[in-house]
Amino acid sequence: MNLPMIRYILSQIMRIEGAFMLLPCIVALCYGEKEGVIYLITAAALIAIGMIGCAFKPSNTMIYMKEGCISTALSWILLSVCGSIPFVITGEIPSFVDALFETVSGFTTTGASILPDVESLTHTSLFWRSFTHWLGGMGVLVFLLAVIPMSGGSNINLMRAESPGPSVGKLVPKIGATARILYKIYLAMTVVEIVFLLAGGMPVFDSLCLSFGTAGTGGFGIKSDSFASYSAYTQWVVAIFMLLFGINFNAYYYILMHQIKRAFTMEEVKAYLAMIASAVAVIFISIADKYEHAFTALTHAFFQVTSITSSTGYASADFDLWPTIAKYVLVIMMFVGACAGSTGGGFKVSRILILLKTIRKELSSYIHPKIVRKVNMDGKPVEHDVIRAINVYLITFVSVLMVSVFVLAIEGYDLESTFTAVLACLNNIGPGLSLVGPTCNYGFLSSLSKFILMFDMLAGRLELFPMLILFHPNLYKGAIEAARRRKSIG
Amino acid sequence: MNLPMIRYILSQIMRIEGAFMLLPCIVALCYGEKEGVIYLITAAALIAIGMIGCAFKPSNTMIYMKEGCISTALSWILLSVCGSIPFVITGEIPSFVDALFETVSGFTTTGASILPDVESLTHTSLFWRSFTHWLGGMGVLVFLLAVIPMSGGSNINLMRAESPGPSVGKLVPKIGATARILYKIYLAMTVVEIVFLLAGGMPVFDSLCLSFGTAGTGGFGIKSDSFASYSAYTQWVVAIFMLLFGINFNAYYYILMHQIKRAFTMEEVKAYLAMIASAVAVIFISIADKYEHAFTALTHAFFQVTSITSSTGYASADFDLWPTIAKYVLVIMMFVGACAGSTGGGFKVSRILILLKTIRKELSSYIHPKIVRKVNMDGKPVEHDVIRAINVYLITFVSVLMVSVFVLAIEGYDLESTFTAVLACLNNIGPGLSLVGPTCNYGFLSSLSKFILMFDMLAGRLELFPMLILFHPNLYKGAIEAARRRKSIG
Repeated sequence: MNLPMIRYILSQIMRIEGAFMLLPCIVALCYGEKEGVIYLITAAALIAIGMIGCAFKPSNTMIYMKEGCISTALSWILLSVCGSIPFVITGEIPSFVDALFETVSGFTTTGASILPDVESLTHTSLFWRSFTHWLGGMGVLVFLLAVIPMSGGSNINLMRAESPGPSVGKLVPKIGATARILYKIYLAMTVVEIVFLLAGGMPVFDSLCLSFGTAGTGGFGIKSDSFASYSAYTQWVVAIFMLLFGINFNAYYYILMHQIKRAFTMEEVKAYLAMIASAVAVIFISIADKYEHAFTALTHAFFQVTSITSSTGYASADFDLWPTIAKYVLVIMMFVGACAGSTGGGFKVSRILILLKTIRKELSSYIHPKIVRKVNMDGKPVEHDVIRAINVYLITFVSVLMVSVFVLAIEGYDLESTFTAVLACLNNIGPGLSLVGPTCNYGFLSSLSKFILMFDMLAGRLELFPMLILFHPNLYKGAIEAARRRKSIG
Repeated sequence: MNLPMIRYILSQIMRIEGAFMLLPCIVALCYGEKEGVIYLITAAALIAIGMIGCAFKPSNTMIYMKEGCISTALSWILLSVCGSIPFVITGEIPSFVDALFETVSGFTTTGASILPDVESLTHTSLFWRSFTHWLGGMGVLVFLLAVIPMSGGSNINLMRAESPGPSVGKLVPKIGATARILYKIYLAMTVVEIVFLLAGGMPVFDSLCLSFGTAGTGGFGIKSDSFASYSAYTQWVVAIFMLLFGINFNAYYYILMHQIKRAFTMEEVKAYLAMIASAVAVIFISIADKYEHAFTALTHAFFQVTSITSSTGYASADFDLWPTIAKYVLVIMMFVGACAGSTGGGFKVSRILILLKTIRKELSSYIHPKIVRKVNMDGKPVEHDVIRAINVYLITFVSVLMVSVFVLAIEGYDLESTFTAVLACLNNIGPGLSLVGPTCNYGFLSSLSKFILMFDMLAGRLELFPMLILFHPNLYKGAIEAARRRKSIG
């Protein structure tokens, strides 16, 4: 294992996090909050440690799949631990476990909170909390690749370990250039959303925080009632942007390249939009009689469906009170999630599409056994290895889900709360149903349950395997043997 | 499509069902119940129609996979429709939908009932109701193959469509001989159970009915409180037999062939037993403080775990009142189910085992990308096609589950009831949780929901594809085109 390279990457991550932590310091200056000093000291410390760690560049910069996964998993854990420090020191979230939960939830763009009253936080901390969503949405390693020239052609393994979806496409031959294009689209769309929100009369601070939460499909609100008190205009703007950030970013790249037709014929995008339209229709019909105006019902249906499907998790209404069919549709959307290559979480639309196509293929093979069919996507046959990987992903996903629910079930809360808590964390959504519904929070759980959910959030964001590998005994076998050999020689 | 052969098989099925319907007539004679006349007339009619249909044996007896699936699906639908007639005519279950639900539940060995008070049925009907479990457990087409010499080497396609598990093994080269061996083991084990129950002082009638329900892993009780009022001896005997009927019958064949070691080293059997032991341990710990004696808690834990895992569904206690962790373990066991090649339902232990092995293989491939590993089972590599089929089965299973829950959710009952109702029917278990818990019944659902659940029971028993193919548009395309061509010629 290339340990010096992992050390180098982790140090870079600390430097980047330290640099980004200077942003809340600016917020502190604007609002005259003394908590900014703590952010400044933490940022300085992170940058200093990062600089020392980066001082010696490793001679061998090769990153194999294994190193890619481990670097990614460790980066995200380190990012969360360092990011939670100011919350603890300022005393705004005194318990370290809770602060870590909140930060993991932020970076993984989950948006599950342990805070009963977000409005009691300082502007500085609210800003940092929302900003973790923005950084986590596109990925911090993708950012690293975008800004730092790394030699060696194996950096795709870093990007692959961090990016969601069954296969990672390079938009352009160079991985650094691909990462830069992605971040430019991401930044531009965030700015457009901020402008739209400002146009609706929202204060600058709110517009920034809520746009970060939308762009990263995170879901941390800055008010205790999430989105319920905002105007219909704001709700529609945010809902449309949640929808947009859940779309595969390749589509936006095609549009930039003037290949508009290609963007709109992507099967995944079409399926995603069709799915959202159907879900909105079903929920609208089921809740129409609960609201005075049909338009209010439509707003809530559209807002909630885009929020859950894109895995953002903002709430404009308490959907836990909706009829069973509406709640069930939301639970299905929690499973499915957004498009691959978007900032959204979940199982991903393209995976579901490919899996459903394998059912059709199987049924046809019973009826016409002699005709050999292939599963196609966007007109091209899907590689056998991709199908295999998706199947393994499904099984692993279900296994992690079941084991996590098992541990949480020991606490004895009802099955609906337990199951949707795990599902909402594993798919990086945020709110579940019942005890973890949109008007509740995760603060009441035990530390063990919180750690399990933190693992689920990280596993969900990194698509399972990077996190699971950390627990694979074979990983350490080699290292332990090497250490033993060194000892016996010494 | 070989329509004459399908007609021939369906006629044979009617004859067999008619013959078996003479058994409740004997019960009617013993108890002097006049309802026996209706069973006698129905039996005579079925035999007569079956004889006419069998009169002309088709010249082409070839059965491809397609015909195998269609014959099987239609046989089971026909079997259920004909089997429900006496319930309606005697007036004991006046609604046809309810009578059909009860019969489908019987033949598919689900054991989900619409009856609020089973004890009001006549002995004749109770006997027939329990006997459908016994016939459905090993399979009526397997019975057909066992008793009627059918030429053509393609009968494996009939057995394959009806038998549970990822791959159907012929114990001996001839398919008819294999079917006879299976039925002999089945009959012998049923007789042993009856003897044990009689030895505990149970009346003959009860012993017969309950043994049929255990052998087929069905679960229809003959008392309203299922098993709660029976002695601990009876509960242990039945629990042990539920465990035994959930084991792959190949194991018993090996034992008969004096290959005892081979039977006990079958990975699936070991995993099944280990799983049951773990589940009993977890549930016992969680419910121990709810019962006065530890032995009572152990009895209930063991009884409920074997009942749910083998997909029988008898209840010795109201497990809906148990703690969340105990209920959750039972829900997981509902998913997993029994061994392949047993009379039990569910996803099957061997499928789960193979899928879990693919996760291990995937993780290893990240750590040691150059080592090519194979998934092994019982020391032999698992064919790639088997893994592919299991994956497709999983996806199809989840899809059928989700669509069914969607339709049931429209009724507006809580998610836990809705979800476990579908799961309990699809996996042929019987009771679910909450509104369909062990002390409740399915009578309150709408006809639409009942038809969905009937479809699920049949789909679960026949392992999905035979039932799904009936709805595949391509199936009728050929037939419609042929009809058109004939018309245009005429």
